[in-house]
Amino acid sequence: MDNVVNGVLRIGIVGYGNLGKGAALAIKQNPDMELVAIFTRRSPSGMRADSKVVSVLEIENFKDRIDVMILCGGSAKDLPEQTAVISKLFHTVDSYDTHAKIPTYFQEVDKASRTNGKLSLISTGWDPGLFSMARLLGQCVLPEGEDYTFWGKGLSQGHSDAVRRVPGVKDAVQYTIPMDSAIEKIRAGERPQLSTSDKHQRVCYVVAEEGAGLSEIKNAIITMPHYFDEYRTTVHFITQEELSANHSSMPHGGTVIRAGMTGEASNQRIEFNLTLESNPEFTASVLVAYARAVGKMAKEGQVGAKTVFDIPLGYLSPKSAEELRRTLL
Amino acid sequence: MDNVVNGVLRIGIVGYGNLGKGAALAIKQNPDMELVAIFTRRSPSGMRADSKVVSVLEIENFKDRIDVMILCGGSAKDLPEQTAVISKLFHTVDSYDTHAKIPTYFQEVDKASRTNGKLSLISTGWDPGLFSMARLLGQCVLPEGEDYTFWGKGLSQGHSDAVRRVPGVKDAVQYTIPMDSAIEKIRAGERPQLSTSDKHQRVCYVVAEEGAGLSEIKNAIITMPHYFDEYRTTVHFITQEELSANHSSMPHGGTVIRAGMTGEASNQRIEFNLTLESNPEFTASVLVAYARAVGKMAKEGQVGAKTVFDIPLGYLSPKSAEELRRTLL
Repeated sequence: MDNVVNGVLRIGIVGYGNLGKGAALAIKQNPDMELVAIFTRRSPSGMRADSKVVSVLEIENFKDRIDVMILCGGSAKDLPEQTAVISKLFHTVDSYDTHAKIPTYFQEVDKASRTNGKLSLISTGWDPGLFSMARLLGQCVLPEGEDYTFWGKGLSQGHSDAVRRVPGVKDAVQYTIPMDSAIEKIRAGERPQLSTSDKHQRVCYVVAEEGAGLSEIKNAIITMPHYFDEYRTTVHFITQEELSANHSSMPHGGTVIRAGMTGEASNQRIEFNLTLESNPEFTASVLVAYARAVGKMAKEGQVGAKTVFDIPLGYLSPKSAEELRRTLL
Repeated sequence: MDNVVNGVLRIGIVGYGNLGKGAALAIKQNPDMELVAIFTRRSPSGMRADSKVVSVLEIENFKDRIDVMILCGGSAKDLPEQTAVISKLFHTVDSYDTHAKIPTYFQEVDKASRTNGKLSLISTGWDPGLFSMARLLGQCVLPEGEDYTFWGKGLSQGHSDAVRRVPGVKDAVQYTIPMDSAIEKIRAGERPQLSTSDKHQRVCYVVAEEGAGLSEIKNAIITMPHYFDEYRTTVHFITQEELSANHSSMPHGGTVIRAGMTGEASNQRIEFNLTLESNPEFTASVLVAYARAVGKMAKEGQVGAKTVFDIPLGYLSPKSAEELRRTLL
């Protein structure tokens, strides 16, 4: 960890999809970080010439050359397989986003990392991540109130990934669309009780493999636990050409609102909003900032699994505590 | 600290103005807290019958009966005098908001509390406090970008307090008003360079004492360092009756925006917004939530001065880390 002492945090990335590429770009914006290697399951020789792309089979050779590993695989299959192994070897950061399975995932990662003296931050990004923090803050500051999370309009990386893993699906994107009428009600001072499906709908654009059964695909998507079964979901089958032409950018965003009351009858509202032109680049930027925090906390000797709820915000910054107090408080 | 173990945090409040009253109300919304006493410099017998109001001269007698003391005095004079003394006796939380003097204040409080094995969280509330956290988060996640803090429209407690301390001023309120055109420019994707006075103006409504020199008062206000000298400030002299009739509620709010770019050219925007019908009640609610964090950290043996940048968000909650992961992540 000598390099951390010298102010450069050595980072590895596992997974070279949109999120991994976003992480590589984000690291360039942080002069106190250095990208050492990007690990991929695909054959590195088949990828575009970039000396930093390495086979994941070589990961153990980098034990002394990487301070923090950013895990950029999907939550449906990649992370549950990878993290338990990699968190034995490296301090890690990941964006595991299957909300319902987080407690189990936390326990597995905590055991693997703690036993091996490593530190692992799970489930960061913007939801889970920054939105979780906004929800927590709202509930603590305004204990009498309601909170509301709206996603979109945007393309959900995790949900698109889940659709793409359905047998017979060649490619797909999924858009989450909030109900604006619900947001306006809350801002107008109402406290509606809203189910998830009152707040959003999900729309999928799917390219099927040749000969695949479209009704089976559709059914597999709309009944998928945690991802789709609770939502109003629409599935459109389109061609690869249409997908590439009309659905290749990855905007997203959303709003967390806490509407509460203090004293006799004072209405108080906290809103946290994201408006993102690139969801994976933003998520990756959050992962990279938290990699800095993990580097600092690991240096202090902290081990085991953590979440964003456990990390003081000052750890995210390259600035000293003194400078933060002077310039940002 | 036995009561903390049993789940009840015993709280004292110093100062029985708007902020102190707000803190008393906020404590009622948190079943894991108990208000033990409110300390005042005024004669408690002259105040409305409330057995919890006690002379500040008796504060030392409460050393073993209060876990965390919430300091609700003003930043101009009260807190610099009080905190250095009280933080020797109690774990404390305060809302010191003179941004430019925070480093000095931090050092003084850190010395007093650390020497006596106490923990002191300074400068929390919403600005400094939640807005500081939003600024820090924005800069860390989007290192290439600009941040903008807008206050209001609202009545500023700290600034009204500062005006009321000007010799010859009997009563006063100060409104901070943001320039909406500037906010719209940023949301439209521009990155304007804005001075503080490009973003806001300050408007004061002042009741002068009989015979006081109005031009001296006005001059003392508009030249006041840190509070007014950098702003476009307007001073209106009105009667006490007008002030009571038209300026007795205390709304406030504001927005912190981080507008940044990732990758090649992806615009990303983070906004944190507060819309408050009662500024002191909201500020007090933040202080109370942080009192819980101070209680937990003090139990862990942490000492010295801290800021919101040093506190993991999970500490603000009455819920366990496991419950937070399960329900809020």
